[in-house]
Amino acid sequence: MYREQIKVLDCTVRDGGLINDHYFEDHFVREVYKAISAAGVDYMEIGYRASKKILSPDKFGKWKFCEEDDIKRAIEGIESNTKLSVMVDVGRVEKEDILPCKDSVVDMFRVATYVKDVDKAIALANEASDKGYETTINIMAISRALDLELDEALAQIEKETKVLAVYIVDSFGALYSENVDYLVNKYKKFIKTKEVGMHAHNNQQLGYANTIQGIIDGCNFVDGTIYGIGRAAGNCPLELLIGFLKNPKFDLRPILDVITKDFLPLRERIEWGYLLPYALTGMFNEHPRAAMELRKTKHKDNYREFYESLSPMEID
Amino acid sequence: MYREQIKVLDCTVRDGGLINDHYFEDHFVREVYKAISAAGVDYMEIGYRASKKILSPDKFGKWKFCEEDDIKRAIEGIESNTKLSVMVDVGRVEKEDILPCKDSVVDMFRVATYVKDVDKAIALANEASDKGYETTINIMAISRALDLELDEALAQIEKETKVLAVYIVDSFGALYSENVDYLVNKYKKFIKTKEVGMHAHNNQQLGYANTIQGIIDGCNFVDGTIYGIGRAAGNCPLELLIGFLKNPKFDLRPILDVITKDFLPLRERIEWGYLLPYALTGMFNEHPRAAMELRKTKHKDNYREFYESLSPMEID
Repeated sequence: MYREQIKVLDCTVRDGGLINDHYFEDHFVREVYKAISAAGVDYMEIGYRASKKILSPDKFGKWKFCEEDDIKRAIEGIESNTKLSVMVDVGRVEKEDILPCKDSVVDMFRVATYVKDVDKAIALANEASDKGYETTINIMAISRALDLELDEALAQIEKETKVLAVYIVDSFGALYSENVDYLVNKYKKFIKTKEVGMHAHNNQQLGYANTIQGIIDGCNFVDGTIYGIGRAAGNCPLELLIGFLKNPKFDLRPILDVITKDFLPLRERIEWGYLLPYALTGMFNEHPRAAMELRKTKHKDNYREFYESLSPMEID
Repeated sequence: MYREQIKVLDCTVRDGGLINDHYFEDHFVREVYKAISAAGVDYMEIGYRASKKILSPDKFGKWKFCEEDDIKRAIEGIESNTKLSVMVDVGRVEKEDILPCKDSVVDMFRVATYVKDVDKAIALANEASDKGYETTINIMAISRALDLELDEALAQIEKETKVLAVYIVDSFGALYSENVDYLVNKYKKFIKTKEVGMHAHNNQQLGYANTIQGIIDGCNFVDGTIYGIGRAAGNCPLELLIGFLKNPKFDLRPILDVITKDFLPLRERIEWGYLLPYALTGMFNEHPRAAMELRKTKHKDNYREFYESLSPMEID
């Protein structure tokens, strides 16, 4: 009943870090790693690997940089078959930040990119592949990608890289199931020797549904986060995804435990999930930036005003 | 770009009433009616019509009974093209509770039934049709219906009634998109002269997605509630549905206003939405009853224990 090829990647700490500038405590990261490992999830993405020459360590917590020693401390002594991933942004990392894989606890580098930067993403992915890592390329803001450019990018990635998967990243939470259908089919037209991945955002409560749609259409790499944590509306909730997949290797209970113990208290301190301003930016196919700013103000629940600020105005 | 035949029914007060035993204040019901009317929504379901001989008015608020005078007071003086609906449960209403339509402010009776009670539901729907009302039959707990019985029920409804629509009611929030697909296609096999309706619950964050899937498959009657209010995990959020449908007659702004003014404060007092115990009953295809009980106790966030209470045990 289940498709063995499907790999689940938890990006709780990585995408969740976008809410708190990556200032998670070691204890929290250890608890997530324990839960993810015990649940049998294939990968855990523990943060970004950014260069401290490019981004200041005064402005971000350690999970923006994911230094080897910090990762080691977080996972030390925890039994696990879960592979570790870090994300790299084009332009925010240098070659020397990527050790040879044999000297690293990291298994996979995922390269986040906009379509327009695909050449840089390919170079970065190849750098990591050549150093022995598994790699993926994750095309962000896919709901804004133009067909002409996306087609070319996909053809290039297929030809010029050794990535395991190329992701659809619905950064704005704007996709409906028919868009997922269209995109997966397009990806599959170009991507013949690699898998297609799905990373969905939950602005319109479609994160999980779109991930299922991706699976139906053939995606074999799917992302989730515990209790749906992530920037703005958050992501596909991992607990729902684990509940859906029938692979007997998964165990939902450790995820439930960590939600009870660590995520309910965390949700009292930092905000994510279904909130109208994020739903509206999703509907309008906009970055949630304006909604995130709104949520910091005393007008945070003035939905009509925010709606009107997003509505199309006269343009020439 | 839009399908004109699609009718949207708001059941905020009716399904929301299942959380608070139908004790909504008149002011709240008026505000909902104002918003729904201004938004251009086709129908508003204002409660149940139950017999006071069968259910005690000491135990339920007025929206369990929806007496004509109570409805009139709630809607008085508000400009509206929205039709009014009440729901009736098989066995909880008597013939004399249904006035001739010409003497009533109600436009539609929706008959809620389990598959096994379809004969009673047909009789009740026919009673209301004969008195001049629009009618629907809503088959609850559809995720537990056996094909053999459901097929027969659908064939009977098609043949023996004048209902406008026959609904798929995912009472347990257990359906995935492929189940929606299967059910809509089954309904359409039998239901040739009426529409198919979709009433989705949000246990697994699929209420909206399943409603879209229903629309794709051909459902022309779809239900939503403001801010997703409804028993347990609640329903398909009306604001998302309105955002999705392209019919220019809809205006999202009055819905946004009423959420800001009335639903945010209400959500502080009564609970609905995505909570793990409801997600789990959805996954296990169970009524949310046990989860609702759990949420009243101090163990309300002991998810693992609740999960284990739902897991299949030895049966003989």
